[in-house]
Amino acid sequence: MTIFSKIIAGEIPSYAVAENEHFFAFLDIFPLVEGHVLVVPKVEVDKLFDLPDDYLSRMLLFAKPIARAIEEVFPCNRCGLSVVGLEVPHAHLHLIPINSADDLNFTRGKLSVTPEDLRRAQTKIVEALA
Amino acid sequence: MTIFSKIIAGEIPSYAVAENEHFFAFLDIFPLVEGHVLVVPKVEVDKLFDLPDDYLSRMLLFAKPIARAIEEVFPCNRCGLSVVGLEVPHAHLHLIPINSADDLNFTRGKLSVTPEDLRRAQTKIVEALA
Repeated sequence: MTIFSKIIAGEIPSYAVAENEHFFAFLDIFPLVEGHVLVVPKVEVDKLFDLPDDYLSRMLLFAKPIARAIEEVFPCNRCGLSVVGLEVPHAHLHLIPINSADDLNFTRGKLSVTPEDLRRAQTKIVEALA
Repeated sequence: MTIFSKIIAGEIPSYAVAENEHFFAFLDIFPLVEGHVLVVPKVEVDKLFDLPDDYLSRMLLFAKPIARAIEEVFPCNRCGLSVVGLEVPHAHLHLIPINSADDLNFTRGKLSVTPEDLRRAQTKIVEALA
């Protein structure tokens, strides 16, 4: 069971922002930028493009309102998107409010955030989605 | 008319690798890594998540065989994916064969490539797709 499956199952707590039958979205606790969200399919597949087609066809549609909420509540040019996947063997999409290409640069240092910071970002996104 | 619409219309030549009713895919001529492909919708929309839902639902499905071809012909851990969008106001997805997160880092220097390099990469991808 991957760490993401444990998060989806509620065995590991997370700052959840959205969920449906196929996907679960929650804050990255090592964000590049405030408002950095992970979208994870509810099937354990390592590589994004190995997901069943019904997941691939629904993934961006699921991400869309979350991306718009992120754009609404965090100061940014737009919501960027990345799939890297070299660490956790469970496909996931990063949604990140960006002002520059460096905001999507996974080699730079991560933001230092407290649980309160994360809770506040979660609340903002969830309220914008409501 | 964006530079991508001119490429799709054939007014600007490109190293095309795939096309269907909704999308056009071609080599980035300023690649981060050999095999760097752009997937562009055939509608001029700036932000990815402002695309009509039928484009959003088909985009990853269109990208899938291209990503698999990239993984087959370039030495990589997998095909990564990014949507940045701060330069050309026409939504596009980057498909990049990655071995590290730095291969998806848009702030690093681009690869220096010749037309012959690009033609060779195009041929490899097109043959793997065939």
